[in-house]
Amino acid sequence: MNKCNSLCNPCSSFTYYFYISFFPWIKIMKRRGLFLALIFTFTIAPSQDQDSVLINRIFSEALSSRNAYENLRWLCKNTKGRISGTPQAEAAVQFSRQIMLDMDLDKVFLQELKVIRWVRGDREFATVNSKRAGRHELTISGLGTSVGTGNKGITGRIVEVSSFIELEKLGIEKIKGNIVFFNRPMDPALYNTYLAYSQAADQRTDGASEAAKYGAIGVIVRSLTTSLDDFPHTGVQYYKEGIPNIPAVCVSTIDAELLSKLLKEDPDLELNLVSNCENLEEVTSYNVVGELKGSVYPDQIITVGGHLDAWDTGEGAHDDGAGCIQSIEVLRLFQVLGIQPKRTIRAVMFMDEEIDQRGGKKYAEMAALNKENHYLAIESDGGGFLPLGFGFSTNYERLKPLLNLQKYFEPYGMNHFSRGGGGVDIELLQQFGAVLVSPIVDMQRYFDYHHSPNDTFEQVNIRELQLGSAAIAALIYLIDKYDL
Amino acid sequence: MNKCNSLCNPCSSFTYYFYISFFPWIKIMKRRGLFLALIFTFTIAPSQDQDSVLINRIFSEALSSRNAYENLRWLCKNTKGRISGTPQAEAAVQFSRQIMLDMDLDKVFLQELKVIRWVRGDREFATVNSKRAGRHELTISGLGTSVGTGNKGITGRIVEVSSFIELEKLGIEKIKGNIVFFNRPMDPALYNTYLAYSQAADQRTDGASEAAKYGAIGVIVRSLTTSLDDFPHTGVQYYKEGIPNIPAVCVSTIDAELLSKLLKEDPDLELNLVSNCENLEEVTSYNVVGELKGSVYPDQIITVGGHLDAWDTGEGAHDDGAGCIQSIEVLRLFQVLGIQPKRTIRAVMFMDEEIDQRGGKKYAEMAALNKENHYLAIESDGGGFLPLGFGFSTNYERLKPLLNLQKYFEPYGMNHFSRGGGGVDIELLQQFGAVLVSPIVDMQRYFDYHHSPNDTFEQVNIRELQLGSAAIAALIYLIDKYDL
Repeated sequence: MNKCNSLCNPCSSFTYYFYISFFPWIKIMKRRGLFLALIFTFTIAPSQDQDSVLINRIFSEALSSRNAYENLRWLCKNTKGRISGTPQAEAAVQFSRQIMLDMDLDKVFLQELKVIRWVRGDREFATVNSKRAGRHELTISGLGTSVGTGNKGITGRIVEVSSFIELEKLGIEKIKGNIVFFNRPMDPALYNTYLAYSQAADQRTDGASEAAKYGAIGVIVRSLTTSLDDFPHTGVQYYKEGIPNIPAVCVSTIDAELLSKLLKEDPDLELNLVSNCENLEEVTSYNVVGELKGSVYPDQIITVGGHLDAWDTGEGAHDDGAGCIQSIEVLRLFQVLGIQPKRTIRAVMFMDEEIDQRGGKKYAEMAALNKENHYLAIESDGGGFLPLGFGFSTNYERLKPLLNLQKYFEPYGMNHFSRGGGGVDIELLQQFGAVLVSPIVDMQRYFDYHHSPNDTFEQVNIRELQLGSAAIAALIYLIDKYDL
Repeated sequence: MNKCNSLCNPCSSFTYYFYISFFPWIKIMKRRGLFLALIFTFTIAPSQDQDSVLINRIFSEALSSRNAYENLRWLCKNTKGRISGTPQAEAAVQFSRQIMLDMDLDKVFLQELKVIRWVRGDREFATVNSKRAGRHELTISGLGTSVGTGNKGITGRIVEVSSFIELEKLGIEKIKGNIVFFNRPMDPALYNTYLAYSQAADQRTDGASEAAKYGAIGVIVRSLTTSLDDFPHTGVQYYKEGIPNIPAVCVSTIDAELLSKLLKEDPDLELNLVSNCENLEEVTSYNVVGELKGSVYPDQIITVGGHLDAWDTGEGAHDDGAGCIQSIEVLRLFQVLGIQPKRTIRAVMFMDEEIDQRGGKKYAEMAALNKENHYLAIESDGGGFLPLGFGFSTNYERLKPLLNLQKYFEPYGMNHFSRGGGGVDIELLQQFGAVLVSPIVDMQRYFDYHHSPNDTFEQVNIRELQLGSAAIAALIYLIDKYDL
């Protein structure tokens, strides 16, 4: 795109309003023949009511500040590998606590909890020796909570399957003593990448125990991503009680395709797998909470949070450094714009979302213990992508006025306001009265990064991150002001 | 994001419909405690009418195919630097022609035209020698159509300004013999990045002539981007008649910040600028056109296009390889799904959008010569980003039914249907009766890449690219079928 003559006939009232009132420079641009059509996109004449003006200030401040972005850079570059229980997770706790202490909030505190401590170890190799194509080392990564193979590793024939039904059909006879290769891709044809993820996720979460039922000695699972890349996309897996715990790793989608091809050429292909990950004793960790005290109903709590832990192979930028940093930024926006909330707003960095959600459970436990009144809870855990709207979980009476807030967000391209929202760390707050909310963000690129070494700071766009911060702050402002 | 318990109470009719009818696996997932809230996003129960089903097939096919993406890869990696008149532009003509020949379309042809031939040359340096900080080489790039400095270069004091008004105030006395540094940033506070671009673009397009009025010997212009990066973002500039033609370059935003800082420390700072770009004689080039003939109204033409030329410093991936490849993909989608259009659909690769829009002018000239009837024209030139809707330029009577098509696109996250659309290469078609359309896409990242070495294939996401292809194909299908 470079330039073009004006395509916008300034005769509609909005265009006229826009043209005459706001941007005298447009006349110059128009004369100069510069591009106008796309300029008008989303430039809905802003209502001049007080709320729209304030929301515009929230968005302008967020988009103009580099504060949150630089905080995210620090978190990504200095606490990489912060799966719960690690020194990096502890550094992330200290960092986010210190940011909030420096902000002069009304209160900053930690919530102590115990977390599972799983360590990857220093060895992770998977090798196949194809008769035709020779030796290949595959790009793999152990799955969270998996046991290791021992230093000698395991070797077995590879049996490729695409579902648990197929596994059952093959049965003990074909599976026993072998390594099962789960290779059902996320369906690229689906617009909804979360749906595609859920349709394929059982292979990763339950594949090991399902295969062990039939005597498998290990599993290798195609990475859960819509992209064809050379990153292993790890994630948690669960062993079922009473079934042997066998090693479970994921393999990059490129190497999954390769492995499948090699198997067609040589059905007797063997895999050698070496890993020394292990589950250690539980250790102490923390949720980190910062509070702006409410002026009218200080006992009513609005929670905005993300999770501080992230998979150890990446920087946890989209999942979920972005959500943590946005939550802190919401408090900063209230402060810097002098907005005094009626209710108490808490930014919460939840610990251990990725493995056992101990942080969310602890937060709810403390809410019960302290008889807290939770008004609203928002979790940002879909990545720092372009915000498109919000999803709400509440009853019909409360839903309607919430959906009506959409009009305030249309100038910022957000008009997906719908039923259904929440997040794993906040869902238990519904019992304390909270309306649950998820930001709805662009979901197309999320699984390019998810749980992989590709989830780095560089993949986050400052504007998209900050539009998210602003959107959440604006939503809280409106709900708090109008007691929705 | 990893997992959470279901947040979606399956009691609304839509959720129920979704839950019961479509995805039996959801029950399994739900029992397994997997994440559901975000899955429901955009999963509006699709209408079961014939059109919705076909549109779903269009999106599924586009998202499942790597065809367009691999074509874009080839274009980016093998014709990098394809500003009009170059051998690379010629290679892009031959490549896109060959793709369409291989598709067995009803007609593939070239439209011959003359294009301006500007060459960058092999030398581009800008150096400042600060008393305090020593010698700095700045990251610069000559602006399109600029003259060079000659091999000796030019040296002058730097005068920083932020507007033409400031330039006028300084006048001949302060400007004569010096180099003007235009340093007004794109306003990051604006949601609409096109608006921010337009507010800053005069410095690049007219800065040289404006400064030369007051005796400047050269200009250096802050790159037009919302990001703080070390890429020069080039683009065309225009000399005014009767004013000396002086060299014009852009400088990366990081170096613009640095230069401004150095100037505050040392107002007498001098810049040495060397460039040997030049304007050569016009050469022959081509628009490339491929046609699927209409079955009912073959004389009514639907044009879908992008521009084939791209700035020489990058790969032209978003600007506008994406638009070209999407246009070809629209024809492929019609073919592969067996959709027979009533009207003739043309994919058009326009040449020379970036400098003088000769391709668009030639296409309109041929339309007049051949007395063509143009029904609809769509130009994709906003990058291969997430599509959010469409903008239409037409009269009120035709607009209303077009806006009503929104309902078909809601399952794909697209509900921005609005007045105002077009593109520089198609705007002249309005005189032949065409409704003009622009895809509305995510505009937040566009200027990170625009006209810079950062506009590479790797910055395009296959899903976002293909959602754009599918959306355009679906829109054409509906408009053609219902004679809108």
